[in-house]
Amino acid sequence: MSYERDAIARMSGYTPGEQPARTVIAKLNTNENPYPPCAAVMDALRGIDGHALRRYPSAMADGFRAEAARLHGLTPDHIIATNGGDELLRLAITTFLEPGGPLGIAEPGYSLYPVLAAVNDSPLVRVPLADDWSTPDGIADRWNAAGARLAMLVNPHAPSGRLTPAAEIAAIARAFDGVLLLDEAYVDFIDPARGYDSIPLVRDLPNVLLLRTMSKGYSLAGLRYAYGIGAPDLVAPMLTKSKDSYNVDAVAQVLATASLKHRDEAARTWAAVRVERERLRAALVERGFDAPPSETNFLLAAVPGGNARAVYRALADSGIYVRWFDQDRLRDKLRISIGTPEENDALLAALDAIK
Amino acid sequence: MSYERDAIARMSGYTPGEQPARTVIAKLNTNENPYPPCAAVMDALRGIDGHALRRYPSAMADGFRAEAARLHGLTPDHIIATNGGDELLRLAITTFLEPGGPLGIAEPGYSLYPVLAAVNDSPLVRVPLADDWSTPDGIADRWNAAGARLAMLVNPHAPSGRLTPAAEIAAIARAFDGVLLLDEAYVDFIDPARGYDSIPLVRDLPNVLLLRTMSKGYSLAGLRYAYGIGAPDLVAPMLTKSKDSYNVDAVAQVLATASLKHRDEAARTWAAVRVERERLRAALVERGFDAPPSETNFLLAAVPGGNARAVYRALADSGIYVRWFDQDRLRDKLRISIGTPEENDALLAALDAIK
Repeated sequence: MSYERDAIARMSGYTPGEQPARTVIAKLNTNENPYPPCAAVMDALRGIDGHALRRYPSAMADGFRAEAARLHGLTPDHIIATNGGDELLRLAITTFLEPGGPLGIAEPGYSLYPVLAAVNDSPLVRVPLADDWSTPDGIADRWNAAGARLAMLVNPHAPSGRLTPAAEIAAIARAFDGVLLLDEAYVDFIDPARGYDSIPLVRDLPNVLLLRTMSKGYSLAGLRYAYGIGAPDLVAPMLTKSKDSYNVDAVAQVLATASLKHRDEAARTWAAVRVERERLRAALVERGFDAPPSETNFLLAAVPGGNARAVYRALADSGIYVRWFDQDRLRDKLRISIGTPEENDALLAALDAIK
Repeated sequence: MSYERDAIARMSGYTPGEQPARTVIAKLNTNENPYPPCAAVMDALRGIDGHALRRYPSAMADGFRAEAARLHGLTPDHIIATNGGDELLRLAITTFLEPGGPLGIAEPGYSLYPVLAAVNDSPLVRVPLADDWSTPDGIADRWNAAGARLAMLVNPHAPSGRLTPAAEIAAIARAFDGVLLLDEAYVDFIDPARGYDSIPLVRDLPNVLLLRTMSKGYSLAGLRYAYGIGAPDLVAPMLTKSKDSYNVDAVAQVLATASLKHRDEAARTWAAVRVERERLRAALVERGFDAPPSETNFLLAAVPGGNARAVYRALADSGIYVRWFDQDRLRDKLRISIGTPEENDALLAALDAIK
């Protein structure tokens, strides 16, 4: 006999990107920052003593929230720290979406959203993105019509890398009756010349919740640390009611706080990733790939001839791991994380050897 | 306007034990181990490099699960690692209890259970413990009659410290139609002479899920690490469907694994806590407290005269923090975590100064 409730028995779990067992030349499949965290963060790790481990951590991550508030020019009651971005996504569902209530998404998007929706027994209100991956007009109306009280958008978009301007996001949020969670996992890699700034949305709108993560920009995917930014009324129920009581650990709080304090060090890795992003994109285009501009630390590249799966497998055989999605509109493409110059060279050499 | 769903708007959050801002002589209010983690665990912390932080951790905590399986004489598919015990409690609700489905508990118990139930909009099937804090006959029948598909018991019991023998737990599980989560947060402090062993329950029964935590026995409350032990069919849906995809971080996995490998070091702190537990209990009894035997790292002591709140406040004024619960059957009592010999002496001196 099974003890699972029906919705769980019916659903399939999330498939994380492969963690390769074979020899790895370049791991470009899960969008990690190719550079390690800065020395100040490593020093903070070495400075943790046994009593910090022995005692319960700050239940609300007070020190971190103060630092994040300072960085964004907000007050700490706009901030919630979470055990990775996944926790914030789940908390938004738990807090704002009734069990079985529909969740608005755009397709394609982050493949975890449908899994979290399934746990909540929530049907998806799927709105297809336009051919250029832009968000179609009227997306909020379609979510509203289906009764969605929560919607999730990733910006810059994954897996395409396309950036939607903050003004367009604001218009969607204004038109939407529920909470709009804007998943900004890759925001740190946006070219500063684009002038993207979503913080005013949080000040102006009661229903916008931003997700920022330390996983990518701050080279801390192993640490599981993210944070939400929203109006205090939006943040409070997650902070005081629906999150686990001590959701982020003492080590993570210390390292995440040190990371924000030394943001300039992380920003150097963002600049380096941008340089490599442009170089890799040009090299792929030269080889016949259709790889549109990206404001993230990855490229979505359509493989010449369209057999992306075969190329994905051939790359894996030579120790180069990229991501292939068995999904409409993506089967002819590869998502390639930006690596170090050496890793990107290895990718290009492997591609040349295949063709 | 509020975006919270109804169940969240209605509920109150969990109140963690006070993290004192004033000068602390002895912090005996949240059941932390009074001794820091062993040197091998601190060495493991110092040995973590930037690449372990940069990369995603093992999604299933494979290394830890292998070590825990070895310790308990089970296979890794019996084990799930979680971000503190709170996460396992929540996952059990998410996985086995329909939204709104009743949750079986015994009262008094861990005050987080009703909070987690409220998030799930679940009514509580409360069964009062007997006067000696033992579990009443027919508890499973009462849960069954109310349609509970999940029940939670803490053993050794909190806040009394009383141990229910494994055979009694087995009888309850056999009579219960749903999943019985046995919260063994304090199991490491049981006197080995009691011969308590709950692992056979997991081998024999399909519906028993044990919760073990590194917070207390292994001095890692700051790290947020616990694990569940159950039949593979019970563990699998939590492991592959309902948990967040990377729920425990790389640092925590390394330190928790090192802790199990050096269990003998932690066991020395358990023996030291037991010695102090008996000494403190005798000293409290001598002072007129009614403090029954405990198999945990705390004592529940009825204050002579009954005004426990006044004593709690007077102790706090002298820098000694213990826990007082504003709850039926507990208002005349204090829950006192076992500290170091110096901390326990400070508590006794402060009590003598009050009276």
